[in-house]
Amino acid sequence: MSDGAQTYAVGIEFIGTRYRGWQRQEEVVGVQAVLENALSKIANEPIELIAAGRTDAGVHAGNMIAHFTTTAKRSIHSWMRGANTLLPDDVALRWITPMPSDFHARFSAIARRYRYITLNQPYRPALLRHQVTHHYASLDVAAMIDAAKLFVGTHDFSSFRAAACQSNQPVRTVSHADLFMHGAYLVLDIQADGFLHHMVRNLMGALFAVGQGELNKDELLAIMHAKDRSLAPPTASADGLYFINAYYPERFQSLLPDAPLTPLWLGILE
Amino acid sequence: MSDGAQTYAVGIEFIGTRYRGWQRQEEVVGVQAVLENALSKIANEPIELIAAGRTDAGVHAGNMIAHFTTTAKRSIHSWMRGANTLLPDDVALRWITPMPSDFHARFSAIARRYRYITLNQPYRPALLRHQVTHHYASLDVAAMIDAAKLFVGTHDFSSFRAAACQSNQPVRTVSHADLFMHGAYLVLDIQADGFLHHMVRNLMGALFAVGQGELNKDELLAIMHAKDRSLAPPTASADGLYFINAYYPERFQSLLPDAPLTPLWLGILE
Repeated sequence: MSDGAQTYAVGIEFIGTRYRGWQRQEEVVGVQAVLENALSKIANEPIELIAAGRTDAGVHAGNMIAHFTTTAKRSIHSWMRGANTLLPDDVALRWITPMPSDFHARFSAIARRYRYITLNQPYRPALLRHQVTHHYASLDVAAMIDAAKLFVGTHDFSSFRAAACQSNQPVRTVSHADLFMHGAYLVLDIQADGFLHHMVRNLMGALFAVGQGELNKDELLAIMHAKDRSLAPPTASADGLYFINAYYPERFQSLLPDAPLTPLWLGILE
Repeated sequence: MSDGAQTYAVGIEFIGTRYRGWQRQEEVVGVQAVLENALSKIANEPIELIAAGRTDAGVHAGNMIAHFTTTAKRSIHSWMRGANTLLPDDVALRWITPMPSDFHARFSAIARRYRYITLNQPYRPALLRHQVTHHYASLDVAAMIDAAKLFVGTHDFSSFRAAACQSNQPVRTVSHADLFMHGAYLVLDIQADGFLHHMVRNLMGALFAVGQGELNKDELLAIMHAKDRSLAPPTASADGLYFINAYYPERFQSLLPDAPLTPLWLGILE
């Protein structure tokens, strides 16, 4: 790092529908590139942004945390106003705060949290058409709530890992996997030290199979133990998935704003 | 009406952002035309749809009520499935139900209800970018709540009526105009026998002026009494406006489904 450089953490809200995912992939723009372009213009130097998680195409974020380092001197107000003027309307900078130089949004993170929102009603939604997953048929929610508890703890999640996953090992520790109804919305709130590629969507796909009576809890456990993706139900749609937050060791966490996880969206995302 | 014709009432949810409003205007498509096209394909005959309200460009609906009459014999399931397959993803048919032949979605309606949702926080929203109005500066909400009470009752609303308004008289009876906060969201819930063109957006514009300290309650009352649009504050954005419901005399109302006003969106729209 050059002299006088400052590290910043940022909180980002975005609708992932238009993007190929967090990272740029070949010709298709990612959220990261859109943010780097805006921040680079404000800094008048190239900004490289590193995020706590690399979301898939179509996945949204309520409070994606990322960091960058720059020698540019700008006020918090200038970063906020500049970014939210330059960014497209489906990406917003929620907050920005200076951090110690050893803060790393990805490697310092000790936990990530996602929510998966399903609208379970006969007719499809219009108002939130790309922001929830629509499930037409009725679901055995009690069985799904029970089955989700299987995911809690330290497990080999190979059966719920995309073939393209680049992680060097498939073991993750899930600290909670809570499923609840809010009106016609079914919400999975899941937190882990980290997630494999497509892991939340694959776990949700398995829970849908349980809710439809196609799979019971014992069969789901057997699939998990088999460590074989080909045995598990299909991947759930990206529309309902939100990266909600990342968490850090106390010396970093205490410096981050206590931002609401999302802007109260649905009244349930706090 | 020809022999064997049946009148149906429908409940429609839509995002108005892509549309010129409810009605087709010259070359630009309206929500009405999109629905008529879908229903006409299912009926295999031209369907003409009449709605309880004619929303402006960009205005959304949680439960717009409309009616049509057809000789086509289709099951409820066929109408629902056909419409939601044929309609674009920002328009959905929530319900359809047979009605007496003298039901008229517009002329039978005795009340209309709108909600206007403002996100009052320093940074603009990304997740709900066209579905709420963003207000950056802090607002004196208590003063706004108090001022909104001025609208309740029977008044000449000429000061809050667009020049293009085609209504033959400017007097309306507002049964409630409640303003409340839900987290960072400020919600106006307003019901009247009917609304003039741009009336809710103009009333909201006046309330913003009150909230910003530019107008007090007495001055607002004077503006209302002056019956002069040029004296009132500017029209608020269409982004935050939702047509929420229409109400009918009991003999019709009792036949309409008791649908939630919206799919619990924001947790506040019940």
